[in-house]
Amino acid sequence: MTNIHDIAKMAGVSATTVSRVLNHHPHVNEETVKAVQRAIDETGYTKNIHAVHLKKGRTNLIGIVVPFMDQIYFSQLVDGIARAVSKTDCHLLIIQTQYIEEKELEALELLKTKQIDCLIFCSRSVQVDVIQSYSQSGKMVVLEDIQVEGISCTYMNHYDSFYAGLAFLYANGHKRISICLNRENSTSSLQRKKAFADFLNAHQLPFLDEDVVTDCLYLEDGINLANQLIQSAARPTAFLVTNDQVAAGLYTTLVRAGWNVPKDLAIIGFDNQSISKALDMTTVQIPFNKIGEQLIKQALESEATRHEIKLELIKRGTV
Amino acid sequence: MTNIHDIAKMAGVSATTVSRVLNHHPHVNEETVKAVQRAIDETGYTKNIHAVHLKKGRTNLIGIVVPFMDQIYFSQLVDGIARAVSKTDCHLLIIQTQYIEEKELEALELLKTKQIDCLIFCSRSVQVDVIQSYSQSGKMVVLEDIQVEGISCTYMNHYDSFYAGLAFLYANGHKRISICLNRENSTSSLQRKKAFADFLNAHQLPFLDEDVVTDCLYLEDGINLANQLIQSAARPTAFLVTNDQVAAGLYTTLVRAGWNVPKDLAIIGFDNQSISKALDMTTVQIPFNKIGEQLIKQALESEATRHEIKLELIKRGTV
Repeated sequence: MTNIHDIAKMAGVSATTVSRVLNHHPHVNEETVKAVQRAIDETGYTKNIHAVHLKKGRTNLIGIVVPFMDQIYFSQLVDGIARAVSKTDCHLLIIQTQYIEEKELEALELLKTKQIDCLIFCSRSVQVDVIQSYSQSGKMVVLEDIQVEGISCTYMNHYDSFYAGLAFLYANGHKRISICLNRENSTSSLQRKKAFADFLNAHQLPFLDEDVVTDCLYLEDGINLANQLIQSAARPTAFLVTNDQVAAGLYTTLVRAGWNVPKDLAIIGFDNQSISKALDMTTVQIPFNKIGEQLIKQALESEATRHEIKLELIKRGTV
Repeated sequence: MTNIHDIAKMAGVSATTVSRVLNHHPHVNEETVKAVQRAIDETGYTKNIHAVHLKKGRTNLIGIVVPFMDQIYFSQLVDGIARAVSKTDCHLLIIQTQYIEEKELEALELLKTKQIDCLIFCSRSVQVDVIQSYSQSGKMVVLEDIQVEGISCTYMNHYDSFYAGLAFLYANGHKRISICLNRENSTSSLQRKKAFADFLNAHQLPFLDEDVVTDCLYLEDGINLANQLIQSAARPTAFLVTNDQVAAGLYTTLVRAGWNVPKDLAIIGFDNQSISKALDMTTVQIPFNKIGEQLIKQALESEATRHEIKLELIKRGTV
């Protein structure tokens, strides 16, 4: 599809100038107006885009399903995707779901009714079989490790990275480690729980139910967790935490209550957000720009592929 | 436009069931299939959406222009807008610009070529006259205090809120206060600088160039600012900071270097982000959900309106 940049290039002017010509701005010289008009005529640049979509069967819209954007993991992810999209001729349609299944179905229907060319699931509530039933409706990419024919996936190896975090804590002398997760049965939480169980088993350590804390997503959840820890008598010596926001809430609340981190409690966060640098916090780096590039690449490819993203432990001062 | 929810309602089933029927899922009983089919026939529910758009001249797409989303102010803002959109029958098209003018022009062209019904500018690089030249192209809403005929605006009163922050610091004994801003000449920075100049003038305090620090947006900028302060001999006793991210970088770095906040330096942040609660930091609350609701309301209204958002100083422990 011809866009304003193509016109600008052909006419040898800036996009701003093309825009001024299109809007009959008074201060554009006649020669320029003519050059732009020639480029428009030659390319058949049209404003009747829906007619073009109807004819070509393409919308140049990529849909992404995301539960919310006020949580930094998701906003960094969407930012990475948006940066990758801005290098293509496509635009990004956001379907923010709050994990409401009907919103996710709406997104799938957008794909089926060809209102978008492809759909990326950053996270989901609907069952895999529901997504699978749309696999013939258009291109789909999911950010998790699922194996469904016709659907592309990019996934982080949460099992390996969680196991590496636990092993690092163990090597630093920690024998009672707690973990916290967000949604108990999400694909990533299941992988993380399996890594925890396997780790405990390999080191002949007991599995205690209270050492798996769930529903931790926001910084406030970390504050609450810290306040519970302060009250409790028997407690872990180390915490492997969902993400850096929860870890920052945990860390700052403990420190303000007079605790010494890592002496009183070692902490590993997740994501390598800015706040983890400011707090000199050990964490696991997620390469959001790389993930964004990969998801958009897969969204625009015709065949379905699988791609693993490696995560790296960043050693700082909280272990 | 009829959507999957309307069909579900009419057929007396869930949207998931409608989706299963549309996708010829095997496990749906015959009666249900018939009920859904009747609803589809009655409403004329069509998958040929572009034909519908072409006919109706509406896309149900709301575009938003945002520079980036890895910065919490913008991600909370987009989250607030997305929450408001999810209560309508519209979807959200994100144009992430990195403040590149051509990207903003692309967004304006989307409006002009009717690929979106309305366009919301969360922040911009192009001059006001460029936006103005598109005011007849479709509905536009900007999140800043500009007066352009035919364009709606919702704006935060940055002058009043900055002045209130300065007055609060002054009332707490501070005579040399520094401020930090992001882009030096953005609408909000100009208002904030004017508040600073007026405040100094009213209290017969000298204006020092070095007391206005610009290009502060990310947490890392606060870390750099802290490191500069630690090196400098003559320094302010208080800082009024762009946003809570910059303030958190400043605070955590100073505290880790052994400074006492607010004794050695008082800090007021901006936004009331989670991190400000965790650090017990004085800040200014921005009501993102309310702003989101307001922007979407204006995007869907036919006439252009102006709406002011009041900001509130949240007093905590860093002053």
